[in-house]
Formats: sequence, C-alpha cells, structure tokens
Amino acid sequence: MSLVLGIDFGGTKIALATATTSGERLRGTRIETRAPEGAEAVLRRALDAANALVAATPGRLVAAGVSTFGVVRGGRVRLAPNVPGWEDLPLPAILRDGLGVSALDVDNDVNAAATAELHWGGLAGTDVGLYVNLGTGTGAALVVGGRVIPGTHGAAGEIGYFLRTPGEPAYASGRAPLEEHTSGSGLAARGSELLGEPVAAAGLFERREEPAVAALLEDAAGEVGMTVANLATFLDPERVVVGGGMAGAFLPALRAAIAGAVPFPPPVEAARFIDDAPLIGAVALAVRTANGRA
Amino acid sequence: MSLVLGIDFGGTKIALATATTSGERLRGTRIETRAPEGAEAVLRRALDAANALVAATPGRLVAAGVSTFGVVRGGRVRLAPNVPGWEDLPLPAILRDGLGVSALDVDNDVNAAATAELHWGGLAGTDVGLYVNLGTGTGAALVVGGRVIPGTHGAAGEIGYFLRTPGEPAYASGRAPLEEHTSGSGLAARGSELLGEPVAAAGLFERREEPAVAALLEDAAGEVGMTVANLATFLDPERVVVGGGMAGAFLPALRAAIAGAVPFPPPVEAARFIDDAPLIGAVALAVRTANGRA
Repeated sequence: MSLVLGIDFGGTKIALATATTSGERLRGTRIETRAPEGAEAVLRRALDAANALVAATPGRLVAAGVSTFGVVRGGRVRLAPNVPGWEDLPLPAILRDGLGVSALDVDNDVNAAATAELHWGGLAGTDVGLYVNLGTGTGAALVVGGRVIPGTHGAAGEIGYFLRTPGEPAYASGRAPLEEHTSGSGLAARGSELLGEPVAAAGLFERREEPAVAALLEDAAGEVGMTVANLATFLDPERVVVGGGMAGAFLPALRAAIAGAVPFPPPVEAARFIDDAPLIGAVALAVRTANGRA
Repeated sequence: MSLVLGIDFGGTKIALATATTSGERLRGTRIETRAPEGAEAVLRRALDAANALVAATPGRLVAAGVSTFGVVRGGRVRLAPNVPGWEDLPLPAILRDGLGVSALDVDNDVNAAATAELHWGGLAGTDVGLYVNLGTGTGAALVVGGRVIPGTHGAAGEIGYFLRTPGEPAYASGRAPLEEHTSGSGLAARGSELLGEPVAAAGLFERREEPAVAALLEDAAGEVGMTVANLATFLDPERVVVGGGMAGAFLPALRAAIAGAVPFPPPVEAARFIDDAPLIGAVALAVRTANGRA
C-alpha cells in the first residue's frame, strides 16, 4: 500500500500523521518543538519521529506534506523568527533527504489549514473563497480558481501585519498591528497588562463579564469583523470559513460586520478542522502531491 | 481588415473607439451620457454613435468590448444606481443585437482599466498584481494567474464600500465609507461643506496650503495609504499600479504606507493610462475576445 506523511511544525509542538493516498488517517504522533534548541535540533527530532512513524505504518511512503510557521517560497522559509535558524533553512531539501521521498510540498500553517478546508471542509468546491485563522496568530488565505494563492513571495494572506490606523508603527518597525490586537497571543499580552496578572486568551473569554475585559474583547471583535468584511468586499468570495481556536468566539461579530458592509454578503462558517487543521492540511498537501497535482 | 470596437459608459460621457485586432486605435468619438434620460435613451444614442463610428472606419467589425459603471455578472449590471434602469439591464444581449456582433465582452470600468494595464501597461506580465483607481470613485482590481478576477458576483475590488471604523454605517445603510472619504466626488462633497462653497477635488489640491484643506487631504491620503498597504499585504502582488485622476497626488502616501507596513513591499507605479483607461480597457476586452481568449 502507498502511504503519505503529513508534518505540522507548530510553535510549541510538532504533529505528524500517516495516511492513505486518499487522505484516510492511519497513525499519528506529536513531539514538543522546543524552539530555543534551534532549527537543527528541532529538525533532527522531527525526522526521527517521522521515520519511526512511517516504519510503524504498513506500506511504502510515496509523498510528504509539510506545514510550517513563517512563509515559504522557493524552498526557503521566511518570517519565522521564533525558531533560531529556521529562516532561510532549505527545509524542503532537508526533508526530502531525511525522509527518502522526492514528492514533497511545503506551505505555511494557515495556507495548509485552508488547503484542508478546500479538500475536505467548508471551502470544498469553491472557485473564490476566503479562509481566516483566528488563533494564537491572526492570518488568512485566499482561494482563487480553486487553489490557495501563495502570492509573489509566499506571503499572501499575512493579515496579522495589517495597519489598524494610518501611519502607526508596522512591519518595518518589527510590529504586527492587527495581530497584536486580535490574536490569542496579542490578547493575552494586552489582557495581562490590563489586569496586572498573567492571563491567557481563553481566560479573558471566561472573564468577559468584567467591563475592562469586555471592552478589550469588543475592540478585538470589531477590528476582526471590519478586517474580514473588507476582505470579503475585496475578494467577493463564495464563502468565508473561519478556523483557529477563537473562531467560535468571533463568529457573531464577523457575521454582523459582513451583513452590514459587504455588497454581496457571503455565508460565514466555522471551519471543519479546528485543533489539528494545519496537520490535516499537511496531509492534504501530501495527498495532492502523491496524485501529481502539486 | 478586421475591426474591434470599444465602448466606455461613464457617468458623464460615453467614449467610443475602433481599433485593429491587435489594439491599434483607428477612430474615436464621445457623446454625453445624460444619465437622467434613463437607460433606454442612453443605450439608443450609444448604439447610434457606435454604428456611425464603425461605418466610418474601413473594415469589418468582429468583436466589441464594453466598460460600464456598476458590476457585471451573468450578462446583467448591478450596483449602478446613477442611470435609471441601468441595473438588471441585459446589456450584453442588447449590444450584441444593436451592433450586429456576437463576440462581445463587458466588464466594469475599474476592471476594464486594469485589463488595459495588464495588456499594454504597468501590469503586463504579472501573475499576481493589484490595480487601484483613485478618481471620481475609489476602486480596485485584483489580478491572479495573469487575469482580472471578477469575484463570485462580479463585485471583487469594490473597495469604495470598505469600512473605515468598526460598526459604522456601510453598504447595507446605503453608504460607501472609504469612497466618501477618499474619492474625488467624496472629497468634493466634504470640501464644499468644510469651506462653505462649492469646490471640486482639483480645487482642493490647489488650496492645500490652507490648514483645513490640508487636514482633509492628509486624512484621505492616510486612509488610501493604509487601505492599499493592507491589500498589498493580503495579496502579496508583484506590482501595484495606481490609476485615476488623483493617482499622482496620492502616490507618495501610498509608497510610504507600503514601505512601512508590507512584509515584501511591491513597487508602486502610476498607471500608463489615466484619462481614457476604461476606454482602452474596453478595446483590450474586444481584442481579447476577437482573439478567442474571452
């Protein structure tokens, strides 16, 4: 039997799964990323785990799909500052060698999650679609012609860098304005400062009865709603699919903004895949590659 | 010799041109739109002018391209409130009959202008590109895979409807927030109110030394810069091309915003075609249709 392998490199964990060439999951595992150890050590542990998983799954590996933080272009990763050495790493070449497989596709985590929705979820069959990720980070992916569009440098959809007000410090100043105000990590940082004690995004949603917390979350919901409504106006998609851990919490605000502001309001749905969307996306990339549609 | 015809339906004038099937302009004319007379009268005069122009040009008409206000989908025009009866008019069918030509393509004015840039101007050869129109109206067009993308309802790029602040009255309330703050017509309305006398957008740029006028124009430039920078982040285009009568005035603000906020800042250039971009776009649509690439 022919097998494919999916690997999702995340900030805190690396998830791996084997699947059939039609995408049925066979076996899975996960290891810690331990980002501070640096790119070489992270990759070595990931390859060991991958090869052990493949060896434990009956069949022959024919293709692999990989999801990673950062953006991917021309076989290199960019915009991935969290793991020392990860940027400019020839990731695809190292993985091809280390896994002994030539058919391999790499994309960033949000594009991989959108690919999962396009293959098996809420964006299936769409010609023009919009995927939005509201999780630890804030990101998006655009589907045109039934494909996730990478953009010129693999950076399409990196909406975390969006300006919220004209002229504020942004990417060139090391900032990500929209992400700082709306992502799980940004909300945790702002909420911890507001409350004078460490609090995660989930903790903020539990304390939303407190006026100061409510104001913080309403501000974020307003920003996210406006951003997604404007993207829907720009792209005129058939559907908008929202993934990431905060998708459910922000869905009402997104729907209200889209209903009020978009000339042809598309339906807005929660993603089919939430927790493991990038891993399922990595499997989708592998399936597509195995079937010669890379 | 085979001929093509381009027609641009604008709010105040209808421009027409004949050209060779490779796009060399042969003859041209223009008539007043006289929108209040309604769709039927406007169309009849346009067809009379078109047939006279074709008759005066040696050769045989093989294809026509049409640019119109509003958005075009499935042979109907939408979002075109200025000419009574224009919305939901079966424009392509009427024009095919009236011109006696079966090869005909219709698109909105901004998409037509982007098509002109894609064929013969600043977007030539781009896979992913962004066209922005800063004129009487505020609009955009996105190029993906070397084509102008219409969106699901023909409404992609209608950024005049963008929200500027969360929750403000927008499309569903009959408003177009970004256009009201940044377009030539919006600036004229706001400037006239500010100064207590009628003033056109061009007049505002002449009076930009006056502090109140300067503040109005800086506000508009900031909004336009932020919007275009965010679209460039979302799309990751190879190039951004800016057309419309205010392109030159806003270009410095656009370049500054893009340099500060976009991870991979694309070059930003003034469009090759300014005054007659939609007409040249209509000719480009006709050329493409004549050559079987509609």
